[in-house]
Amino acid sequence: MSEPVRIGLLGHGTVGGAFAALISERAEAVEAATGRRPEVVGTLTRSEGDFSDILERSDLVVELLGGTDPARGYVLDALRAGRPVVTANKQLLAQHGEELFGEARAAGVQLRFEAAVAGAIPIIRVIQESLGVTEISKVFGIVNGTTNFILSEMAATGAPYEEVLARAQDLGYAEADPTDDVTGADAAAKMAILARLAFHTPVTLEQVAFEGIEQVTPDDLAYAKELDLSLKLLGVAERREEGISVRVFPCFLYGGHPLAPVGGPFNAVMVEAPAITEVTMSGPGAGGPETASAVLGDVVSILAGEAPVHETRAELPVVSDVTSSFYLHLEVADRPGVLAKIARVLGENEISVKSVVQRGIGEDARLVMVVHECLESRFASSVEEIARLEELRSAPRSIRVIEEEFV
Amino acid sequence: MSEPVRIGLLGHGTVGGAFAALISERAEAVEAATGRRPEVVGTLTRSEGDFSDILERSDLVVELLGGTDPARGYVLDALRAGRPVVTANKQLLAQHGEELFGEARAAGVQLRFEAAVAGAIPIIRVIQESLGVTEISKVFGIVNGTTNFILSEMAATGAPYEEVLARAQDLGYAEADPTDDVTGADAAAKMAILARLAFHTPVTLEQVAFEGIEQVTPDDLAYAKELDLSLKLLGVAERREEGISVRVFPCFLYGGHPLAPVGGPFNAVMVEAPAITEVTMSGPGAGGPETASAVLGDVVSILAGEAPVHETRAELPVVSDVTSSFYLHLEVADRPGVLAKIARVLGENEISVKSVVQRGIGEDARLVMVVHECLESRFASSVEEIARLEELRSAPRSIRVIEEEFV
Repeated sequence: MSEPVRIGLLGHGTVGGAFAALISERAEAVEAATGRRPEVVGTLTRSEGDFSDILERSDLVVELLGGTDPARGYVLDALRAGRPVVTANKQLLAQHGEELFGEARAAGVQLRFEAAVAGAIPIIRVIQESLGVTEISKVFGIVNGTTNFILSEMAATGAPYEEVLARAQDLGYAEADPTDDVTGADAAAKMAILARLAFHTPVTLEQVAFEGIEQVTPDDLAYAKELDLSLKLLGVAERREEGISVRVFPCFLYGGHPLAPVGGPFNAVMVEAPAITEVTMSGPGAGGPETASAVLGDVVSILAGEAPVHETRAELPVVSDVTSSFYLHLEVADRPGVLAKIARVLGENEISVKSVVQRGIGEDARLVMVVHECLESRFASSVEEIARLEELRSAPRSIRVIEEEFV
Repeated sequence: MSEPVRIGLLGHGTVGGAFAALISERAEAVEAATGRRPEVVGTLTRSEGDFSDILERSDLVVELLGGTDPARGYVLDALRAGRPVVTANKQLLAQHGEELFGEARAAGVQLRFEAAVAGAIPIIRVIQESLGVTEISKVFGIVNGTTNFILSEMAATGAPYEEVLARAQDLGYAEADPTDDVTGADAAAKMAILARLAFHTPVTLEQVAFEGIEQVTPDDLAYAKELDLSLKLLGVAERREEGISVRVFPCFLYGGHPLAPVGGPFNAVMVEAPAITEVTMSGPGAGGPETASAVLGDVVSILAGEAPVHETRAELPVVSDVTSSFYLHLEVADRPGVLAKIARVLGENEISVKSVVQRGIGEDARLVMVVHECLESRFASSVEEIARLEELRSAPRSIRVIEEEFV
């Protein structure tokens, strides 16, 4: 067995705790993917642990303290000592990115920070690696889950800002002091990082203009609905003829816009470039496990070096008879009892009906229904049985349905 | 200056041609990102070039021939000769993936294939790298643009399958022989690759059950609309208690589903895992430039080795006065001429109105409008001017609008 990789963990809050749990849960998978087993050899919290001691005993440092101080000093020290660093710290990168990147280059070690922007959405990797040499024209989207939740709720319920903010705090979607989120400052830090990477130009946090959502009224949202508009707090970084523009502001979108359906605490980011048209990525914007997962992805990339190994790790059988929900279209003669007959067949096969539409009369009636999830083989035999009923005027037609109704 | 990296290009069709153009256009950016300038030193086409000769003179091979023969032999030879390989060949990977992966491992060189699935969407990198050690439970989505275009058109126009297929062929979205696309075979190859990577288990193309869209009728789509359902050709790879399931089939989705708005030739893939909830990625599924861009991303990853360098490449100014479309909400006294006055102010500032809603009467009227894109400073001064009109009963409220209306 190879030497384990020793991880020094700075911070043990929501994300730090989730990361510690995740890395022990996935240690075997990490070893299978990279050849090295990860092991947390020291944890620094507000009250416990000594940074120098942890640094000395670590091969790799994970910084999840948040804030710029003392995180900045720790990360610089780790890089100078030749340790690769993974961080989720958006303020640190937005305010001191150039200094940290410079130190990492000088030391020849990696600094990774996927978790700093948009939680589980791998936007940093996509911009830096997939699109690393692409002439990106625009990066924009919803990069703050708190405000997206508040705006979604206001639109859905008609309740005023203060009331919905209080609800968001109760649900844990907003902090006790929500200033950073609702003013747009949090989104501004994230957009500074994205703009820096997309355009390969220094961007400081002070250069990002931002507005928040405190002024939004239910009244605006009601009118907007009539115009088929929904409100989002958008971060926009784009190339202009004269340079680049990086801003955060509340903004309406028409119903068909790819970002319009992104509701609740979700984030979504779109990247536009002539070579790729546009790519949209969406997912949970925060949360302990989601953020920890992004941190782990970075740790694995550092350990893996450059080559994915494509090793198989299991021999799983491929199964075929699964469950589905179905749409079923029947042309029937509209005689008394036909629906009862069909319902009986379905009932005997333990298939329950979700919704039915009946159209037409007499000999030209149609019955269209959606049935709840059931074993596909059972559904197939029910349909065969229904097809043999004398009232059927043509072969039944069926198509699978994703039953889940998103809100 | 460092030695250039010599690229052997196999294939010069739509994607091959686009790649050759792109790599010469982005050569400088590649050098900035990786320290090495790329140069195509030989191109193999159906009628020209000698493979052994090209291989000998190359540091890296890009295979864009398509099909399994002779591509398989070439890729194996290149890997055995120690050359990293980038390919966009889904059939090759779906049918001979294990053999190729094994050869790449044995030779200790990279084999990359982002362009083989979902065009510009970096789903391979996300699954392999960001989520490389994540317990993925399900990967599913729309991975064939031809069929998605046909289904979108049928739903929008009510036209029958054969007619829409002919239109897709005219527009270049479907090939003269559309069999691979419309039967689901193309999507099945892609799902075999995604399942292989997501679940780290061997999946052969024969194990993927697939159905196509040839049987879909406009009638079904019309009923579906009443039920708020839209039809997609879905590829689904998921973990089940008994193993995994990999299938391709036409399927309805409810209106709120993240994949429901994905129309035309676009692709979209969702990845579900307990640690990340779900991540959705969408973008153009094919096209020469889009596919070539994915190939280039792979080439850059091979050249870059493990560390993104974070070097700045430009010093661009940050601009602030940009153009936007706006929503404008005015509470006015409904007297003759008020709209004319407001329109005059906007007109004098060269701001044109896209839509207006007027509500209420007398002293309690409201005027809500969306104006077309204009310079923000101009809009601000217009609003100041409007605010001074005696008919205004409260301060104007404005919010930015993304004007683009997606279909």
